[in-house]
Amino acid sequence: MVTTNEPEDVSARFRFAANRLDRRSDLRDDAAAMARLLAADAARFLVVAGDRPLIGRGAAPTAFHDRAAAEALGALFDRAVFLGLAPSAEGEGAPWFALRSGLDADAIAGLADHEAADLRALAVGGVLAEAEYGAIAQGRACLYWHATHRFCARCGGRSEMAAAGWKRVCPACGAEHFPRTDPVVIMLITDGDRCLLGRQGRFPPGMWSCLAGFMEPGETIEAAVRRETREEAGIEVGRVDYFASEPWPFPGSLMIGAIGRARSVVIRRDETELEDCRWFDRDEVARMLAGDHPEGLFTPPPIAIAHHLAAAFVTGGATE
Amino acid sequence: MVTTNEPEDVSARFRFAANRLDRRSDLRDDAAAMARLLAADAARFLVVAGDRPLIGRGAAPTAFHDRAAAEALGALFDRAVFLGLAPSAEGEGAPWFALRSGLDADAIAGLADHEAADLRALAVGGVLAEAEYGAIAQGRACLYWHATHRFCARCGGRSEMAAAGWKRVCPACGAEHFPRTDPVVIMLITDGDRCLLGRQGRFPPGMWSCLAGFMEPGETIEAAVRRETREEAGIEVGRVDYFASEPWPFPGSLMIGAIGRARSVVIRRDETELEDCRWFDRDEVARMLAGDHPEGLFTPPPIAIAHHLAAAFVTGGATE
Repeated sequence: MVTTNEPEDVSARFRFAANRLDRRSDLRDDAAAMARLLAADAARFLVVAGDRPLIGRGAAPTAFHDRAAAEALGALFDRAVFLGLAPSAEGEGAPWFALRSGLDADAIAGLADHEAADLRALAVGGVLAEAEYGAIAQGRACLYWHATHRFCARCGGRSEMAAAGWKRVCPACGAEHFPRTDPVVIMLITDGDRCLLGRQGRFPPGMWSCLAGFMEPGETIEAAVRRETREEAGIEVGRVDYFASEPWPFPGSLMIGAIGRARSVVIRRDETELEDCRWFDRDEVARMLAGDHPEGLFTPPPIAIAHHLAAAFVTGGATE
Repeated sequence: MVTTNEPEDVSARFRFAANRLDRRSDLRDDAAAMARLLAADAARFLVVAGDRPLIGRGAAPTAFHDRAAAEALGALFDRAVFLGLAPSAEGEGAPWFALRSGLDADAIAGLADHEAADLRALAVGGVLAEAEYGAIAQGRACLYWHATHRFCARCGGRSEMAAAGWKRVCPACGAEHFPRTDPVVIMLITDGDRCLLGRQGRFPPGMWSCLAGFMEPGETIEAAVRRETREEAGIEVGRVDYFASEPWPFPGSLMIGAIGRARSVVIRRDETELEDCRWFDRDEVARMLAGDHPEGLFTPPPIAIAHHLAAAFVTGGATE
């Protein structure tokens, strides 16, 4: 039994982190093995249209379909990404794949028993089996990478999928390209019993979250936490502790959560990045998490690492 | 005074992490400010030929040259990457840039007072001022990204540098591309008083290091540590703790160091990845670090996070 995620991991609390597949990267270049797995009765297929997984509307909705259902959804089997083998008590587990639908938008809209689901809403709702979300995050990120990297960045030639979806190769110049994952720091900054939260203009009214930003070349995680906090809020940060990480398939980031201690208190907000930014005391954050804040303020839902950073601040466990 | 790196960070012990520049990302899209900074008397320029920084041979060698020296090195000023402002007790700090040389290999070889230095050797040797290494890592990663991403991965068109080197835009399709940083996990796996080290075939004879590998889409840091350890050594890992991180400019990775606890002890090595892999007891690792191992075995030098993971294991501080 493969143990990639462990219940003791803080990271394993997050919806998109619960991936139980054994990726078996050793099989990716084995064409015979891939052909056998693709044709296996037990094979299951995530079928994506645009950026939306196609979900069955039945009593036990799933994003991973058997071959017959995937065929009806227009699955492009020749460009399948091999995600891994599902856990199995005995013998080889079922192979899971991710691929695109060849159906057009009208055909997708006209499906009787399936719908193209918004991935955020799907994750917040939690209607799928827990083990599907991590595999969806994995497959969605890979398919997005293929869709946006059809050409070789070195020579401009058309590149081709290889290694069961884990590589692209350029026939013209020979360059090999690998899926891209962008590290992002997301941090709860504390000042004793207060923490720093901000609002982006695109947030729903009332929602406040942790500051966050893409890491840059030449940075440590700790340095990126300090730089982003200074840029967005004008607050200087001292000690930084790693909290947990979460794959975030919008479209392909690794969220690296951290707790940082403020060394200054006067906020100078970056007005292009943030609509508002202020200190919240522990009781106020507890009410935001509990959903009984007097002004209706709230944090992101539990699919987001920001929720768990705020919860760790309220309980004090991660900040003492 | 900007405090992006702090002495208390474990990460700040690493050669390529010691970056003291204030990146001032707010200035990158300000063409007038960039023109002023490029022309400033205080401006300093990292000039790279191929993958090698050009270093002065004098008594106090430097990789950051003034304008006259950079001109003599063939600096292509019109494609300069703005790294940031150096720390300054008062007023605006000196602007630092990274750019390529337009000189050919013969001209580089014929330079009287400068040489094209191997970056690893330069870092191991430690001949430059400490503050230069982080800036070299930053500049080297950006220049490599530009050199390998001259074409748009979406449409195959020729893309152009923008935002003082922090973006590429495609005039044909309008796509924007940002520098890529690949997260890599590197882990010391412990089994009580023993730790797991491996040898790749390309290592110098006698050198052993921590296992490591690129993270994949859809993984947490903890899951990637477990997957890579299972793939390379056949060892199952339980608890995983973050240790520190280091930017690694070969060519553009973020090394994420972790300590993991083994749940199994029988090694099944991936023979294509590793030439050898075994358990080392604490005393043996102490001798490898001290340079008095009876068989001449040793760990990577202090520029690498693997060295510090091994040192943390020996002192016990990071593994109790």
